[in-house]
Amino acid sequence: MSTVTDLRGTIQDLDREILNLMSQRQELVQDAKENHGLMMNFPFQQAIRYMDQQEVEMVATLLQERVQIRAKAKAKKVMYYSREYQQEDTIITINGERIGDGNPHFIMGPCAVESYDQTSIVAEKMAQQGVRLLRGGAFKPRTSPYDFQGLGVEGLQILSRVAREQGMAVITEILSVDQLDEALPYVDVVQIGSRNMHHFPLLKALGKTNKPILLKRGLSATIEEFKLAAEYILAEGNKNVILCERGIRTYETATRNTLDISAVPILKQETHLPVIVDVTHSAGRKDILTAMAKAALAVGADGVMAEVHPNPAKALSDSKQQMNLYEFDCFMDAIRKVIR
Amino acid sequence: MSTVTDLRGTIQDLDREILNLMSQRQELVQDAKENHGLMMNFPFQQAIRYMDQQEVEMVATLLQERVQIRAKAKAKKVMYYSREYQQEDTIITINGERIGDGNPHFIMGPCAVESYDQTSIVAEKMAQQGVRLLRGGAFKPRTSPYDFQGLGVEGLQILSRVAREQGMAVITEILSVDQLDEALPYVDVVQIGSRNMHHFPLLKALGKTNKPILLKRGLSATIEEFKLAAEYILAEGNKNVILCERGIRTYETATRNTLDISAVPILKQETHLPVIVDVTHSAGRKDILTAMAKAALAVGADGVMAEVHPNPAKALSDSKQQMNLYEFDCFMDAIRKVIR
Amino acid sequence: MSTVTDLRGTIQDLDREILNLMSQRQELVQDAKENHGLMMNFPFQQAIRYMDQQEVEMVATLLQERVQIRAKAKAKKVMYYSREYQQEDTIITINGERIGDGNPHFIMGPCAVESYDQTSIVAEKMAQQGVRLLRGGAFKPRTSPYDFQGLGVEGLQILSRVAREQGMAVITEILSVDQLDEALPYVDVVQIGSRNMHHFPLLKALGKTNKPILLKRGLSATIEEFKLAAEYILAEGNKNVILCERGIRTYETATRNTLDISAVPILKQETHLPVIVDVTHSAGRKDILTAMAKAALAVGADGVMAEVHPNPAKALSDSKQQMNLYEFDCFMDAIRKVIR
Amino acid sequence: MSTVTDLRGTIQDLDREILNLMSQRQELVQDAKENHGLMMNFPFQQAIRYMDQQEVEMVATLLQERVQIRAKAKAKKVMYYSREYQQEDTIITINGERIGDGNPHFIMGPCAVESYDQTSIVAEKMAQQGVRLLRGGAFKPRTSPYDFQGLGVEGLQILSRVAREQGMAVITEILSVDQLDEALPYVDVVQIGSRNMHHFPLLKALGKTNKPILLKRGLSATIEEFKLAAEYILAEGNKNVILCERGIRTYETATRNTLDISAVPILKQETHLPVIVDVTHSAGRKDILTAMAKAALAVGADGVMAEVHPNPAKALSDSKQQMNLYEFDCFMDAIRKVIR
Repeated sequence: MSTVTDLRGTIQDLDREILNLMSQRQELVQDAKENHGLMMNFPFQQAIRYMDQQEVEMVATLLQERVQIRAKAKAKKVMYYSREYQQEDTIITINGERIGDGNPHFIMGPCAVESYDQTSIVAEKMAQQGVRLLRGGAFKPRTSPYDFQGLGVEGLQILSRVAREQGMAVITEILSVDQLDEALPYVDVVQIGSRNMHHFPLLKALGKTNKPILLKRGLSATIEEFKLAAEYILAEGNKNVILCERGIRTYETATRNTLDISAVPILKQETHLPVIVDVTHSAGRKDILTAMAKAALAVGADGVMAEVHPNPAKALSDSKQQMNLYEFDCFMDAIRKVIR
Repeated sequence: MSTVTDLRGTIQDLDREILNLMSQRQELVQDAKENHGLMMNFPFQQAIRYMDQQEVEMVATLLQERVQIRAKAKAKKVMYYSREYQQEDTIITINGERIGDGNPHFIMGPCAVESYDQTSIVAEKMAQQGVRLLRGGAFKPRTSPYDFQGLGVEGLQILSRVAREQGMAVITEILSVDQLDEALPYVDVVQIGSRNMHHFPLLKALGKTNKPILLKRGLSATIEEFKLAAEYILAEGNKNVILCERGIRTYETATRNTLDISAVPILKQETHLPVIVDVTHSAGRKDILTAMAKAALAVGADGVMAEVHPNPAKALSDSKQQMNLYEFDCFMDAIRKVIR
Repeated sequence: MSTVTDLRGTIQDLDREILNLMSQRQELVQDAKENHGLMMNFPFQQAIRYMDQQEVEMVATLLQERVQIRAKAKAKKVMYYSREYQQEDTIITINGERIGDGNPHFIMGPCAVESYDQTSIVAEKMAQQGVRLLRGGAFKPRTSPYDFQGLGVEGLQILSRVAREQGMAVITEILSVDQLDEALPYVDVVQIGSRNMHHFPLLKALGKTNKPILLKRGLSATIEEFKLAAEYILAEGNKNVILCERGIRTYETATRNTLDISAVPILKQETHLPVIVDVTHSAGRKDILTAMAKAALAVGADGVMAEVHPNPAKALSDSKQQMNLYEFDCFMDAIRKVIR
Repeated sequence: MSTVTDLRGTIQDLDREILNLMSQRQELVQDAKENHGLMMNFPFQQAIRYMDQQEVEMVATLLQERVQIRAKAKAKKVMYYSREYQQEDTIITINGERIGDGNPHFIMGPCAVESYDQTSIVAEKMAQQGVRLLRGGAFKPRTSPYDFQGLGVEGLQILSRVAREQGMAVITEILSVDQLDEALPYVDVVQIGSRNMHHFPLLKALGKTNKPILLKRGLSATIEEFKLAAEYILAEGNKNVILCERGIRTYETATRNTLDISAVPILKQETHLPVIVDVTHSAGRKDILTAMAKAALAVGADGVMAEVHPNPAKALSDSKQQMNLYEFDCFMDAIRKVIR
């Protein structure tokens, strides 16, 4: 046993001596570098010969980590959206609704504003159901230039008037930087649509305002890209960003898009921002909206967005996927049962 | 006013006369056809000239429907999976669990059976949590031929012994028709894996047994194709098919697959079969399993499937996505809270 | 035989009589409608009883077509992009290159303009290879706000100077409407990037200019949506649109995007616009660029776009996918062999 | 200057001394480990303190590489499909056609064998065009159990007879292991269909034969998975594998699948196996077949596969995508022009 103890002692002495020499060496090298521009790398290739494989692996890991930490410290920008930057949940208060507070919130309204009456009828029904966030499109991004493009500023005025009458806040999409001046006075929450998630000039411009932003995930954006789009807004100073999962494009045609339900808990974990789910655009059909809204809330979403129209068959856009008033009532009643 | 009445009367008289002539005509045409092989089509192109556009549309619709009903009556096979064939939900009873009865059921166990101990430890923990359906792979379909391919029949024997000891039922995958004779005695529910959803000879062969079948959706199968794969089994006489949504392949890499949560309510509407969700394979990561299971049950799934391993880091397959025993406990506790 | 002849005659008499009555009826119905608001539909449901199935089908088809033609005539806007609107190929002449003339054209240059030297070196090499269309990014749309965002107007000035020196035309991306005034004077062809294919305000604004537009297909746009994005430009009066297929987002990760090679012949068939292929962005790797360019030209593309950088490893963007000058030479030599 | 020289000398002396001590240390550690089970790791965490960041990075890289090489040497199975295993192209000779020899080869025939006449007419036309590889389905994997499932063995007999009469080889799909005994005598090349690419028992069973195998890429298989499916066959000893790219499932609906043209050069680079392209199944429409075949050959494919039927409108499967005899003639003539 004494041999082992001796052996251990001898090795430890050697270790100390080696470290001592390395320490001396470093001072000299430092001198050589600073005063003479001389680079003297230690011949590690030879040193490795004196390590066994296990030791090599251990050191490799050790050094690798060190290099990575450095690289991260250097490269890594702590993202504003991240939990590293802010541990606690961001809560965005709109018209008394505290989105992100752990309770479900609802954003409803017609796909497009078509008239005062159409919008008003929907809002009245929403008010009865206690929904206070009114969505509606005034500038409509449409695949074809010949489709209804929205009422523009007139639509905003209608939205604004109806919201005032019903004590609601207005959420509406703005398509480009040059619409901002005209549109912002009428709008409580600016929606950035799926097609515009990557329209960086708009993200930056809205980052300079203090309006709450509802940012929709791009049609085929990854979760990573979605977070970085939010970062464009946050980096400019606007911290009021609500993320909206609205389905991604896949090969499946039974639904208009495939709701990426897993994105919700991932976004909740990796960001401190509120996350809501647009069930209308992910499903593209009405018969499964209630089930999807339940899933969204169960998975941890902060709210649900859906479209309601007094007469969907006559709607100027998305006529197949908007709920009528009766369906909206059933939807809200069913949801209320599960959220108590 | 009398003019109107007269006019109406005159037109109605004409109508009657026309119909009378058409009736006569038909008899003659029938005679010409049957006795002389003579085809005499009525000159409808001319007749159309005497209809206004509204009338043309009405008649077009009328006739179109008639043609379609005929075509359907001829072509349409009422699918065994459909609600048309069977209105009420199919309930499949396995080891006392009535899958499809409206209550949530759980299928748990290791990805692959590696040893008696490994399987037994998991099953014991499951028993404590009241889970009575034990899954585990004996024949493993692996992307590379050099990966662990499962213990084969020995694995089945382990599963069977552990299940007997813990009062559980065995769910395991079978890969091909020639494994059936050997494997079936050990198995309570046969799983058809995602890669085999389109392996029709296996579907047909299992359709001739009376074993309950857990049919997983193919990696990139549409809902339509998924239902038709079930039909292959049902058409052979086996009515005990459980559908399992397990995520589809998309561009998103944050999760292994994208759970198509909407598929659950669609399958529940369009089929009478039980639908469960495999959260492990759709997520491919453990941190969001509980959230996803909650979503699955909220959306209407009849059960949840997940993988548990005593020491995931050492697992021979899927080491990153299996829960350990502690995580499994937390998972079950969290789910139990929401299902009461 | 006389019986048959008689029978035919009798039926034809009946037909004439029926048509005669229908003609009378129509006059009366017209009168009833116009003067008394009276609608009198012919009892076709009864009439159908007097037709056999074959006759029903024939008439159904006949009427259906008529209804559809009407519907089309009413609804159908002949799209400006379509071969219906313009049979012959559109040829867009830029700096002497007649894009769309059946010969292959090449658009090359660095991903981003980084400096005068960097751009100039590439352009000189391009000139040696006879390439006269110089691409380079000044406003760079980047996924992260912390990545290099381009030199902006300074970049445009560099591009413009280099192009002048080398006798080339400048192709560069513009991101938003408010950049147009500043940018257009330096630009010969405006590129609309993949992320902006659905940024309708930009499409409309560029539609009002007479600059040639290189419109890239959106990351997950369908061919149908791609054509309609072009229509936004064409409908405003600018007929100089070049379509650019650049790969779509799929689950495959071996390439950055999946080049949808079939889109080229489909676009050539369904539109009269030139179609080019961006091989760099579809592949996202350099080792298969030559093969892909060959495929693009073989399938009928009017040109190929690719990125070249004097020192890709040091590039401020897309460093892995740009060719260096030697690779560019090899690429051009290989392509020249197949196109002669 | 002498100071620098001295400094360098001193440092080098230190280095030698350190290495000397490390060498001594290693012997002692070896002794301690082997004879006393004593593990003595060098306190590298301290040593790192004596290195500057650049040195740390250098060593980290050095060690990392060493660890990786070891890991590779241990883990890495040189795959049979790889160019590492076999540098030169595999050439598979079938009926005198040397697939993989750099010249284009053609595999044509009806989707499904329906009758002797139908098959014979197509084969005769093929013979006139010099095509000597006859494809045709006898066992048809169909999405619905109620669709035509093929003539089975009778179909094989027809194929075999027609091939003999026309001097052709037979390529046909086999669906499961239990069909092999019956089917193999009639078959020259076994096709493994897209739905079966992951049916491992079949891959293994065919790996034990010496029949050439035409392996189709799975509907949503990655290139990596595709290669590994081939490995299943190769690992069993059958080296005669032809890879067939046939389009992947994406969101685009203008084509039945999206031909992943880039997969061809990637597979040619990473494997030594012949690669052909099935233009019929990737396009799912006839109007772009010629363009796609040209692209396939330009990109480096060893051959093209397509479907031909004497009367596509009456075909029992895939009626919309099969060429008729006239279209086939045009197709071959157009291809012949570009391949000379």
